[in-house]
Amino acid sequence: MIIDPKDPVAVAQALIRCESVTPAEGGAQALLESLLAPLGFAVARPTFSEPDTPDVANLYARRGEGPAFVFAGHTDVVPPGDLARWREGPFSGVIVDGELHGRGAVDMKGAVACMVAAVARRPEAAPVAFLITGDEEGPSINGTSKLLEWAAGRGERFSACLLGEPTNPEALGDVAKIGRRGSLSAVVTLQGAQGHVAYPHLADNPLRRLGPALAALMDEPLDEGTAHFQPSHLEVVGVESGTGAFNVIPASATLQFNVRFNDRHTPDSLKALLTDRLAKALGPDAFAIAFQPRPGEAFLTAPGAFVDLVSDAVEAETGRRPALTTGGGTSDARFIKSYCPVVEFGLVGQTMHQVDERVAVADLETLTRIYERALVAACG
Amino acid sequence: MIIDPKDPVAVAQALIRCESVTPAEGGAQALLESLLAPLGFAVARPTFSEPDTPDVANLYARRGEGPAFVFAGHTDVVPPGDLARWREGPFSGVIVDGELHGRGAVDMKGAVACMVAAVARRPEAAPVAFLITGDEEGPSINGTSKLLEWAAGRGERFSACLLGEPTNPEALGDVAKIGRRGSLSAVVTLQGAQGHVAYPHLADNPLRRLGPALAALMDEPLDEGTAHFQPSHLEVVGVESGTGAFNVIPASATLQFNVRFNDRHTPDSLKALLTDRLAKALGPDAFAIAFQPRPGEAFLTAPGAFVDLVSDAVEAETGRRPALTTGGGTSDARFIKSYCPVVEFGLVGQTMHQVDERVAVADLETLTRIYERALVAACG
Repeated sequence: MIIDPKDPVAVAQALIRCESVTPAEGGAQALLESLLAPLGFAVARPTFSEPDTPDVANLYARRGEGPAFVFAGHTDVVPPGDLARWREGPFSGVIVDGELHGRGAVDMKGAVACMVAAVARRPEAAPVAFLITGDEEGPSINGTSKLLEWAAGRGERFSACLLGEPTNPEALGDVAKIGRRGSLSAVVTLQGAQGHVAYPHLADNPLRRLGPALAALMDEPLDEGTAHFQPSHLEVVGVESGTGAFNVIPASATLQFNVRFNDRHTPDSLKALLTDRLAKALGPDAFAIAFQPRPGEAFLTAPGAFVDLVSDAVEAETGRRPALTTGGGTSDARFIKSYCPVVEFGLVGQTMHQVDERVAVADLETLTRIYERALVAACG
Repeated sequence: MIIDPKDPVAVAQALIRCESVTPAEGGAQALLESLLAPLGFAVARPTFSEPDTPDVANLYARRGEGPAFVFAGHTDVVPPGDLARWREGPFSGVIVDGELHGRGAVDMKGAVACMVAAVARRPEAAPVAFLITGDEEGPSINGTSKLLEWAAGRGERFSACLLGEPTNPEALGDVAKIGRRGSLSAVVTLQGAQGHVAYPHLADNPLRRLGPALAALMDEPLDEGTAHFQPSHLEVVGVESGTGAFNVIPASATLQFNVRFNDRHTPDSLKALLTDRLAKALGPDAFAIAFQPRPGEAFLTAPGAFVDLVSDAVEAETGRRPALTTGGGTSDARFIKSYCPVVEFGLVGQTMHQVDERVAVADLETLTRIYERALVAACG
């Protein structure tokens, strides 16, 4: 089958039909290589590995010389879940009533297809690059982070990056994301001494410290928010203690928490703050805290030339200037921000990660024209 | 081997050599039958059953007519644990340096042996009965509770009961127990709504209610104690919540608690009190509480004629009047108290349930004489 690279719908259909559930490549990056190479791109497809994680396929493509404008995205998708609940097959790529159905339609094979169509329609635009991973929905260890290091090691430089995650809550033009909160997780262990409930004076119930620990972590706000960020927020997401017997006071208790934090904090400053709050509530020796490796840092691409460039492109095609936000979950922008300014703008996210994920065909055409405008402005 | 029933040491050795780890009979009750029948006792050995619990052997024996003075106890023992850590085998019944070694030496084959020796030495004492179970260390479902019902159904009546649990902390004569606290357990479920930690406004974290729930249950005393009881006491013994993922707010959380309570409460009054405290702290619809079946009621054998009879016997043989207490864990006295006054007095408990459980041979002779005095006084 011949696919017209200028047609985002045809490209999106072909990508959806690749069963690239993370970490599988599923033919999606091979398809991209077959489309980009004829458009003048030099394509490399490095696979990255690390112990205890699956190997992951990645794609880097460049056209032209010098610091490149980068389209970034991913070809992996989350699992489809219960197949019986899909109206159309999750890998069907079928169009029904003006909507293209399938896993990845909005997150984010649809947007990747628009990027391909944009560079196909603007053959003169350069230098431009593609930074595509197969590990955005997985542990994100063998993906964008390593691909950036790999590219930098080969002398690749970038002027700015547009990442195609679905940013719009309701309609194309709603929102561009100019930053993301950071993320930090930890396990807190409360020590005690086991014993029989009939003789509590011979035991030390760690659950008597759990309430104060929960209060120390969750009751007092971490901040009031900043110019571009909502307040930082901590949730305890799990607790565990007990032997299963009603007559035994347990020896210890654990709790797990996650913080989504703004640019008032770094992972290190937060670690110090939260450890201090627990120490004040419980005493310094009553607990142990183990932070998870690889916290995400908060970042912000401050409003300015590149943010305006993206906003102008969106406004020109949708008639609306997108709101600039920093909310929601993490994305690979947290890695890219260390290399160049990055803004996220993609499709409407309503059906992402859900059964019957789908995108309006008309949105694919509009997003392609937005990406064309951004591409031309950035390379101009 | 011929065993002299008047010799508590010989009887205790023989009982220890029966491997009657709960719920196994292990030959222990057969041995008792062979000793009691020649002493004029009519012996019955009913086995009781219930779905999901092991069948359990029990023994009832009576000599004489009319409401009987009852010796109560059990032949089952807790498991020996790591055999390699025992100096003498747990079923050896060996005497070393004046101490008889083996599982059950103090809890409570030793005391059962003293009861046998007491009725052997006082052949005229009647009416007297033995109420012996093999399910005191197990779930206590097919044991004393059913044996009492069984006996009552056959017209058996009791004047008073002496239960031979190890009551003395340091030396024979320290303590007689005249009551026990009740015990009530429950599981509390806190309802919430699952969601992503990045979007907490779309979720409802039940762990935000866990601290107030813990405080409602544990912070305020249940009472100040009563004339013969220490204060009632509640311990939360377990908590559980979480999906294992750091980015998911859990849908619900559970906690388990146990209360040891005095005669100011009944299980029903405590259920109402604790449900009300949770409802005030959390709101009436934010939680569900499931109480475990078969709570133990608090009971007290008020100081008076029977308590004095036992105290007099102890004082006559040890020179000390025992303290009258109601502390510690539950015992089968919680069942017996509905049929007749019950007092507990037995051996020194220091090694009970431990490796190298053992009893001073001299204590077996002293306890036999105490039981003889109580028997004669009760039947006189």
